[in-house]
Amino acid sequence: MFAVAEKLCGVFAPVPTPFNSDGSLDESGWRKNLRLWSASPLDGIVIAGSNGELPFLSLDERARLTEIAREEAGGRLHIMTGAHFPSTADTKAAARRLAEAGADSLLLLPPHYYKGKDEMLAAYFTDVADSSPLPVFLYNMPANTGVDISVGVICAAARHENVRGIKDTSGDMTKLGYTALRTPERFSVFGGTGNWFLAALSMGACGGTMAVSILFPRSCRMLYEAFMGGRMEEAVALQKRLLPVSDAITRRFGIPGLKAALEARGMTGGPCRRPLLPISEADKAELLGIINASGLDEYEQWRSR
Amino acid sequence: MFAVAEKLCGVFAPVPTPFNSDGSLDESGWRKNLRLWSASPLDGIVIAGSNGELPFLSLDERARLTEIAREEAGGRLHIMTGAHFPSTADTKAAARRLAEAGADSLLLLPPHYYKGKDEMLAAYFTDVADSSPLPVFLYNMPANTGVDISVGVICAAARHENVRGIKDTSGDMTKLGYTALRTPERFSVFGGTGNWFLAALSMGACGGTMAVSILFPRSCRMLYEAFMGGRMEEAVALQKRLLPVSDAITRRFGIPGLKAALEARGMTGGPCRRPLLPISEADKAELLGIINASGLDEYEQWRSR
Amino acid sequence: MFAVAEKLCGVFAPVPTPFNSDGSLDESGWRKNLRLWSASPLDGIVIAGSNGELPFLSLDERARLTEIAREEAGGRLHIMTGAHFPSTADTKAAARRLAEAGADSLLLLPPHYYKGKDEMLAAYFTDVADSSPLPVFLYNMPANTGVDISVGVICAAARHENVRGIKDTSGDMTKLGYTALRTPERFSVFGGTGNWFLAALSMGACGGTMAVSILFPRSCRMLYEAFMGGRMEEAVALQKRLLPVSDAITRRFGIPGLKAALEARGMTGGPCRRPLLPISEADKAELLGIINASGLDEYEQWRSR
Amino acid sequence: MFAVAEKLCGVFAPVPTPFNSDGSLDESGWRKNLRLWSASPLDGIVIAGSNGELPFLSLDERARLTEIAREEAGGRLHIMTGAHFPSTADTKAAARRLAEAGADSLLLLPPHYYKGKDEMLAAYFTDVADSSPLPVFLYNMPANTGVDISVGVICAAARHENVRGIKDTSGDMTKLGYTALRTPERFSVFGGTGNWFLAALSMGACGGTMAVSILFPRSCRMLYEAFMGGRMEEAVALQKRLLPVSDAITRRFGIPGLKAALEARGMTGGPCRRPLLPISEADKAELLGIINASGLDEYEQWRSR
Repeated sequence: MFAVAEKLCGVFAPVPTPFNSDGSLDESGWRKNLRLWSASPLDGIVIAGSNGELPFLSLDERARLTEIAREEAGGRLHIMTGAHFPSTADTKAAARRLAEAGADSLLLLPPHYYKGKDEMLAAYFTDVADSSPLPVFLYNMPANTGVDISVGVICAAARHENVRGIKDTSGDMTKLGYTALRTPERFSVFGGTGNWFLAALSMGACGGTMAVSILFPRSCRMLYEAFMGGRMEEAVALQKRLLPVSDAITRRFGIPGLKAALEARGMTGGPCRRPLLPISEADKAELLGIINASGLDEYEQWRSR
Repeated sequence: MFAVAEKLCGVFAPVPTPFNSDGSLDESGWRKNLRLWSASPLDGIVIAGSNGELPFLSLDERARLTEIAREEAGGRLHIMTGAHFPSTADTKAAARRLAEAGADSLLLLPPHYYKGKDEMLAAYFTDVADSSPLPVFLYNMPANTGVDISVGVICAAARHENVRGIKDTSGDMTKLGYTALRTPERFSVFGGTGNWFLAALSMGACGGTMAVSILFPRSCRMLYEAFMGGRMEEAVALQKRLLPVSDAITRRFGIPGLKAALEARGMTGGPCRRPLLPISEADKAELLGIINASGLDEYEQWRSR
Repeated sequence: MFAVAEKLCGVFAPVPTPFNSDGSLDESGWRKNLRLWSASPLDGIVIAGSNGELPFLSLDERARLTEIAREEAGGRLHIMTGAHFPSTADTKAAARRLAEAGADSLLLLPPHYYKGKDEMLAAYFTDVADSSPLPVFLYNMPANTGVDISVGVICAAARHENVRGIKDTSGDMTKLGYTALRTPERFSVFGGTGNWFLAALSMGACGGTMAVSILFPRSCRMLYEAFMGGRMEEAVALQKRLLPVSDAITRRFGIPGLKAALEARGMTGGPCRRPLLPISEADKAELLGIINASGLDEYEQWRSR
Repeated sequence: MFAVAEKLCGVFAPVPTPFNSDGSLDESGWRKNLRLWSASPLDGIVIAGSNGELPFLSLDERARLTEIAREEAGGRLHIMTGAHFPSTADTKAAARRLAEAGADSLLLLPPHYYKGKDEMLAAYFTDVADSSPLPVFLYNMPANTGVDISVGVICAAARHENVRGIKDTSGDMTKLGYTALRTPERFSVFGGTGNWFLAALSMGACGGTMAVSILFPRSCRMLYEAFMGGRMEEAVALQKRLLPVSDAITRRFGIPGLKAALEARGMTGGPCRRPLLPISEADKAELLGIINASGLDEYEQWRSR
């Protein structure tokens, strides 16, 4: 599944970064979570993605998180690490460093502070892919970046043999459909949230990178397999159960909510770095109520191993 | 399928209004198209929707189109007619008139020139549903109206027994999923474009109202049935073929493109009312090229009956 | 000031339409307001604009409002009436009818349900201007229409000798500046709200059409004259006092708020047509508090004549 | 003008960072530009703002640029340096370091990758202001950040005695007006672009931070003084001449255009860091044509000193 020569498919978890109360990396908490995810049916993890608080992580920290993941889960889980920095030169340096640290592939946001033309985005992706020792995944995240990568740029980048896929959180099904239609067979199209994983698969995606799979990987894999097996009633029913949970730990309550949910299920959550604020007790109660109501915990016995 | 007491499902075509060159209704062209659609596997038609140039149609014209549709296709196709006017009083009057003209149900845009709060939208829908002799379908069309009906308003309106469903073109799969999850079983959730019909079904929709079914109803029904039958490979493949055609006759080339495509397939198209401008020859050639490349005509033998 | 051959300048009030409780036009209330405005320092009024509930007014009603305005205020106030209907043909017919009814000029929204290209907008404006017996004012109102008329379309339309100006509510000062820079001298650029009347003048506008002038025309004229006379401290101070009042009767509390404020100052307000909902008592109290706090009533003695 | 105890007013230039062809800081080019700006009528400069390519600058680089500015222009020009980093902890560390390097004040973007609630923004500004040795200026830049700081947050932050003003590029005159109205007298409201400097002043701003003043500081000061002196005809005429130049070196051609324009006027421009791409020759010719046509060079004799 995770050899770089093969096409990536399945369910990837964009995992959070655990911090100690002084803001430093909580390495033992990180190891604990990694061992648990290794026992789950996840296909891979994404380190230093949006849920990993990537804008707050130095390159040293991203490399350290990757090294530990390699130690704890290498060979079992595909390890994709966020390599984006605002300048092309810094991103290139990050790609080399993260390869040394043991990542299997890299996740790459587009440049976004300056809203450049398609030409600038395509050049950035190609520049990095040219020099990167590892395959590159594009990351379309317009809600955070304000940049919605066009189908034209995606297709231009996909022609580069070192660009191997995209995580698209835009929710634009027309874009997702065109992307699946117009990129090479080796290019992996991943939906970017569990809110509509089944919709993404129906438009031609071959997997998903979604926060809900951090806690509910088996539920996500069951949906994936039901879809692959043509058991649509089961797939639709699972999607309906996943939606409120997925939505709650992403758009509604953010990373503080996600971390609180991890704590509530015996995994390591911990505080976020400021400026992110802690979740209120009222919000936490509502969030846990939504999770409990979903009944999905019944499928997730790996957590108690 | 179309008795008002039953839940609406399947494939509905939001059909265009044919005009003569002087701008008057082309009644014989309308009859011709209706007879053809009656021979197709369509479940219903929507008169005076966005593709029907609703803002340009008087109530007299909408009633006349409905009467003729009743004559030509009544009992064979469900007939839904657009009843929205900017004021509540005018919309109520339209509901009564269109019921007399023989519509089976009514399509209802939200108020949109003034961007009101949820309270105003819910009151409008309830006011009309209260007095309407026919069941009402909500119509969420933010690209044209600038108003994206919230899940809260949809659910509030859905509690009214005379509100029977929604056509949602927003493309927001989270919204579509919540709508399917939180409305009563009798409430029909329809996707609003063929660009992502399969995605809508996978989120819990029970049908679609989509421009591409005006010309390719059987292709759309085949997708619908493949989904219902769990033949996902077939369904995904059909969705991939429908996407570029659906996109071309809606977002890319608009109603003038749709009408040109109808003409090219032996049906009645004709001019649009101004301010809509005719399609250029270059755009028309591109559009027909996309349709030809889809190969979907092979499924649509009903057109030559 | 209001002869069609002259350039329009100064302060125009986009007046509300008074309705009786059964929804019919309140003609005596309308006459009363017109007589009051005639005694104020207003340069003109706009009938059937956004504050006039234009989407809810038939052509008959717009013509009747115009006839009465001609009787009560003709020759004293410039009378501009909203002529927009969704189709070009209906708008042309409206232009002829409103000319007969005694309007001095016409206000013209762009086509907006279908989001057309610049070409469509320019053709619409030119088509109407070609056949209109009266000079035409463009009306850029993106918050309501979802269409922001480009500088290119404005300049193209401004080359038509029957297109005489624009009311721009976009608040885009760059656009306003380019419009003033690139249109002929005879073309009137009007800011569209009292929130930033002075800013519009500083970018090259020669007047404003603003809701706040319905109640505070003299305050608006004082600002205008202070600007023309280079008394910037006075102008800035007036702008600061106008801002909260202007904002409250437009964006914050809408037409129901505006009408409540008119009632509170002895003029005719009355109900809005549904779907617009009445203002709550709490909102009304807040609104009147803002108006009282502005202290602007001291300049508006014309109301008690 | 630049003592921290005084209110900042006037014209500030958000200056670009010169790089050598290998991407390193061009310190001699930087010194040359600083000496020129010191001879101009500028009131201050902003280092590591958007035009300074702040997302690409390390803290070391921002400190070095500040040290050199202190050497070359300290006491003559107010020196404001961009202190924003994504995490609160990094921003606090930057504030201390930039104070040591000799800045007079700090510019502070809001957190923006995660679109937090008002509470998060207010906490970030207050946290930094609490620990910063230097006064802080807020920086509202929604076109780049996707975050439009609300009036509520601005007013909350302005109550902190170490928060001394805002540079607002939103172009929202209602917001600018409310900001001027509701913040303490000691709080400086600056417009953020030369496109509408005069409009900002008319809404209550006391200065501007604008790219066009990098090349045309005297033209900007003349406008400012004309406004202060009530010479509105002169002010409006200057604004009309500044608009196309300001727009060209910001929105239209970006930082590569700004640097090309500097080169064309004998100052140091140089390359941008990637991913920003060089300006094309055609765009450069158009840009210089716009600058030449403005005729503003006649006022800017300081450049040749």
